[in-house]
Amino acid sequence: MINVGVIGYGYWGPNLVRNFHETSGAQMKAVCDLDPRRLSLALKRYPTLQTTTDHRELLKDPAIDVIAIATPVAAHFPLAKDALKAGKHVLLEKPLTQSTEQALRLLEEAAKRNLTVMVDHTFIYTPAVRKMKELVAGGSLGEVYYYDSTRINLGLFQSDVNVIWDLAAHDVSILDYLFEDKPCAVSATGISHVPGSPESMAYLTVFFESNLIAHMHVNWLAPVKLRRTLLGASKKMLVYDDLEPSEKIKVYDKGITLKDNVEGVHQLLIGYRSGDMWAPNLPLTEALRTEAEHLVHCLENGERPMTDGAAGLRVVQILEAATRSVRLQGQPVELDARRKAA
Amino acid sequence: MINVGVIGYGYWGPNLVRNFHETSGAQMKAVCDLDPRRLSLALKRYPTLQTTTDHRELLKDPAIDVIAIATPVAAHFPLAKDALKAGKHVLLEKPLTQSTEQALRLLEEAAKRNLTVMVDHTFIYTPAVRKMKELVAGGSLGEVYYYDSTRINLGLFQSDVNVIWDLAAHDVSILDYLFEDKPCAVSATGISHVPGSPESMAYLTVFFESNLIAHMHVNWLAPVKLRRTLLGASKKMLVYDDLEPSEKIKVYDKGITLKDNVEGVHQLLIGYRSGDMWAPNLPLTEALRTEAEHLVHCLENGERPMTDGAAGLRVVQILEAATRSVRLQGQPVELDARRKAA
Amino acid sequence: MINVGVIGYGYWGPNLVRNFHETSGAQMKAVCDLDPRRLSLALKRYPTLQTTTDHRELLKDPAIDVIAIATPVAAHFPLAKDALKAGKHVLLEKPLTQSTEQALRLLEEAAKRNLTVMVDHTFIYTPAVRKMKELVAGGSLGEVYYYDSTRINLGLFQSDVNVIWDLAAHDVSILDYLFEDKPCAVSATGISHVPGSPESMAYLTVFFESNLIAHMHVNWLAPVKLRRTLLGASKKMLVYDDLEPSEKIKVYDKGITLKDNVEGVHQLLIGYRSGDMWAPNLPLTEALRTEAEHLVHCLENGERPMTDGAAGLRVVQILEAATRSVRLQGQPVELDARRKAA
Amino acid sequence: MINVGVIGYGYWGPNLVRNFHETSGAQMKAVCDLDPRRLSLALKRYPTLQTTTDHRELLKDPAIDVIAIATPVAAHFPLAKDALKAGKHVLLEKPLTQSTEQALRLLEEAAKRNLTVMVDHTFIYTPAVRKMKELVAGGSLGEVYYYDSTRINLGLFQSDVNVIWDLAAHDVSILDYLFEDKPCAVSATGISHVPGSPESMAYLTVFFESNLIAHMHVNWLAPVKLRRTLLGASKKMLVYDDLEPSEKIKVYDKGITLKDNVEGVHQLLIGYRSGDMWAPNLPLTEALRTEAEHLVHCLENGERPMTDGAAGLRVVQILEAATRSVRLQGQPVELDARRKAA
Repeated sequence: MINVGVIGYGYWGPNLVRNFHETSGAQMKAVCDLDPRRLSLALKRYPTLQTTTDHRELLKDPAIDVIAIATPVAAHFPLAKDALKAGKHVLLEKPLTQSTEQALRLLEEAAKRNLTVMVDHTFIYTPAVRKMKELVAGGSLGEVYYYDSTRINLGLFQSDVNVIWDLAAHDVSILDYLFEDKPCAVSATGISHVPGSPESMAYLTVFFESNLIAHMHVNWLAPVKLRRTLLGASKKMLVYDDLEPSEKIKVYDKGITLKDNVEGVHQLLIGYRSGDMWAPNLPLTEALRTEAEHLVHCLENGERPMTDGAAGLRVVQILEAATRSVRLQGQPVELDARRKAA
Repeated sequence: MINVGVIGYGYWGPNLVRNFHETSGAQMKAVCDLDPRRLSLALKRYPTLQTTTDHRELLKDPAIDVIAIATPVAAHFPLAKDALKAGKHVLLEKPLTQSTEQALRLLEEAAKRNLTVMVDHTFIYTPAVRKMKELVAGGSLGEVYYYDSTRINLGLFQSDVNVIWDLAAHDVSILDYLFEDKPCAVSATGISHVPGSPESMAYLTVFFESNLIAHMHVNWLAPVKLRRTLLGASKKMLVYDDLEPSEKIKVYDKGITLKDNVEGVHQLLIGYRSGDMWAPNLPLTEALRTEAEHLVHCLENGERPMTDGAAGLRVVQILEAATRSVRLQGQPVELDARRKAA
Repeated sequence: MINVGVIGYGYWGPNLVRNFHETSGAQMKAVCDLDPRRLSLALKRYPTLQTTTDHRELLKDPAIDVIAIATPVAAHFPLAKDALKAGKHVLLEKPLTQSTEQALRLLEEAAKRNLTVMVDHTFIYTPAVRKMKELVAGGSLGEVYYYDSTRINLGLFQSDVNVIWDLAAHDVSILDYLFEDKPCAVSATGISHVPGSPESMAYLTVFFESNLIAHMHVNWLAPVKLRRTLLGASKKMLVYDDLEPSEKIKVYDKGITLKDNVEGVHQLLIGYRSGDMWAPNLPLTEALRTEAEHLVHCLENGERPMTDGAAGLRVVQILEAATRSVRLQGQPVELDARRKAA
Repeated sequence: MINVGVIGYGYWGPNLVRNFHETSGAQMKAVCDLDPRRLSLALKRYPTLQTTTDHRELLKDPAIDVIAIATPVAAHFPLAKDALKAGKHVLLEKPLTQSTEQALRLLEEAAKRNLTVMVDHTFIYTPAVRKMKELVAGGSLGEVYYYDSTRINLGLFQSDVNVIWDLAAHDVSILDYLFEDKPCAVSATGISHVPGSPESMAYLTVFFESNLIAHMHVNWLAPVKLRRTLLGASKKMLVYDDLEPSEKIKVYDKGITLKDNVEGVHQLLIGYRSGDMWAPNLPLTEALRTEAEHLVHCLENGERPMTDGAAGLRVVQILEAATRSVRLQGQPVELDARRKAA
């Protein structure tokens, strides 16, 4: 039985508590939040939970195996470091940390003590992204040319991180999961709509060592909510619309065909294919449940989680580079090769 | 009566001929195309037209006032230059020319002879874009924060220009029309999906001297066709979907409100507003008809067309800068101040 | 303080319990269900609730003011009758009863004891239907010509009632709320897709004494889920799509104009108008919360609920007539004038 | 070579002329219209056409093989009868005639002279309806339970026929094509929104000798345009949306499964299946072109057209019965067995 303590019972914390509560093999032991009213809410729903405003109580409790951290990003690093030092495994809400530096130090700490660091890259555990991975890895799309994502809506403006760290973190973690290709540079542009606040809209292009290119539009100030990703590829193309109640994934048997042309007339080289569309049925399992079960499984079997600390680091590197590029009006920022190896 | 000769009867030429044919005040006189089969098609439909494979015949014809050019872009400059030298007004399909240099020379030639150069920025003459201009200029949207456009579909891959000169030309001309703000730099990324061919997908960010930012996604290799523009603004926000049969424009009474907060707590500063949505009724007039009538009106009254050569030049400058930035992986390219003044 | 006991903790009961629990002025006292596992679930969430498998305990409890009944329809009448006899007010899930006869007897019982019978016509308490009522009653649509509703999806096949009593009950209650016009007859057709089971799809036309006509398509075996209502009217027309996350109501300034034509040529008499579309912003309040508060308010102030027993009776009359018409392949069934008066 | 004369050059006539003009094996000879301005239009586009305001000139012309009639419905019967008497084959716009009586007389006349009567049931020649037929006939949908169609928009109000003869004619012809099942009765309701004018909205249920049921909603006064048909069936279900630019047909691997249940508990008998969705690619061929080619082929080879006079008669019988049922408020009208045999 894996015993879990959760720090942070704000927006996401209750989802963690509910899912660990209902995962066999896991047991919710304690919840910590600085706001006693949040703790009363937790208690009302789960009367047997220990609650505290002092996270050190969780770290001291020898019955607790894992600390799950769902606080503002700024608190991720100090809390996770303390938890590791207290000998606990940690699960961190995305993004892992505020900087590459912090991420590297956490990984080092965990390695030293042989502890697990897992990052809550939730989308990796959704049936839709799993299906995309299956299609990409299985080769049925052919060579993937580009990943293009639009992730926009009205709000919620964050004060401590910009929209890249909030929304693009999802897409960058999906990129990290879907493709073996190595990213090498980022060009990004963006702007803040609120004076003195972090960027509220941004556009990121991630270049890969292969021909793959990825682009994201993230925005807190949009008239409509969109969650839509396109995959362009050589054999088939795909649209993933996360707001569709069913048919989230549509695979189009569409594309271009390049033909050898002895006379070299360009116009004749390119043919257009248009075939059937297919929307695979997807199960309705909740991502966070799959994720909680995965963590329990990894801890029980000494395996690395799919979204381990290294994945969290790779994502943070790209978010960091993107933010730097925004400040340089799109000037490309290379991803440090040494760190990429992490 | 304004007499018109059209050069190029391929994809767009027939639309020009049809519209000038039906515009009172204009008269279609002659059509030129290198392909005699295209000329037979024209003749079959308009038996009284003069047809020729030699454009010089049109230039020599004293009865012709205006030469409309609907050829591949590479031919724009030499044909327009010759037409101006022959004393003809010219209407050019977008983009005006292949380079800023060419555009400047055309403008000079026209100025010298007091002739009109008009560029066929078709979207400027659509009821939807007119309505957007009315809303932007009238102030009902408040301060516009961003213009975000997605203009993607499968095909038609061009061999002589990249996707920026083909598709982004539309958005850049709309930007030029909608906003008084001066663009100052461009950052763009993109890639070619066909080895040895021009870029087939691209992302452009246009920076303005004000806080306005514009972004375009143009793509010839997309699984779905999209033509959608978002305007983020301080009072209202707008979605323009050109593929909607009706309700192309939707205005959302949505946004954020910044409140003074004596204690300076950031989270309290931002409020979210969500009000009614409104889709203005738009007439069904064809853009090219409005455009033909506008040209006739301008020539008869000695007025400058809305989409004159200077507008064409400003668009070409941005397309040129964007293409340069793509080759530099997003490095921002400044727009030359002297030319911007043009 | 109004004390509430709920009978039936299956699909809908938990929603009743949650809403009465959170409504100020109301207090959840006891829950009854025949299945002890359902009661454990209730207890786990609300540890202070009394639970029982014997509904008579609730009826005997002098502390309970209202009995809310969320059982299969067959149990509505006997349970409600007993509750009234025990001096309790009753709230019944829709449809009120299985027959007009039963409904009349309940109303009589309630009148005799001066008790309140309320029926849970949930849609009447939604912001969207409220907005429709406002538009209809305020006259901004003009004369309403028709109500057309499509309410279809895959499942849930009921065994004790046909699809009319399940799904059309919603639309008929909305009709009853929206219009002052008196319904006079029903023609309906339908079929069962499962041998030996009640009709699983049906089409109903309700005729009114005025020119208004209402039509409903209800279906448990549809490839897609639809919840869409059209209102045709003389000045404006309306689409209500309950599956839209926002913009559930769209008002179209569209219609026909009849012109006097001295020569009597028919074609000239009809003009078509096409104006703006408008989607009013709607609050996100939960219907059942509004409903719970309304019941509390009515009991405290001795007022009749909007969806009182008489409304429930009027709905049942139409469902009963429709079912009869289905068995007669669409032959119209008149609504009994005496009962209509109820 | 089949020589064609067209009577009626209003809304649909130009489409007939254009398609016969471009169909190899056919030759457009002459056009008749009562309005000389319509004839000038025709001449302007097709300078070699004979034109006349007197249809008898076409009937007398021995060079003409087929008379295509695209006039108001009231003129169908007399014109077709005269054409047949003059020894011409006839192609009639839908619906074939204004009554069963007229249709029978035309068929008799044609049989006597061994001439072909074809009715322009255009939808039968669309790729989408062809694909539906293939899926229905091939058995991949299983047993079809129902056909449900919504065909509504604003306008065009007809003065000589009601909305059933105008819009439902399409669906009834599709029914006739898709299913072998014999229709046996019709129940319909409807109303006129314009005093003294024919019904402008109607609902039809067609009962078949099998369990199949068909329903149509047709309406000239709707706030939105819809063209959507659902097919419920035992194995798969289908949505056909004619307004979709691509993906007009979507096939859902969805439905119910009936299981044997030893204890006979009804609820357990029904299982719900939800699988992939699939949208077959459809060619973009124009229906009327396919139809013109089919007529030429039939005349050259002495074959019966798919949409022959008998098909036209079967459709007229149902439209006639539906109109009668509307006047009886939905009372079912049986289809005469003797005529059904036609």
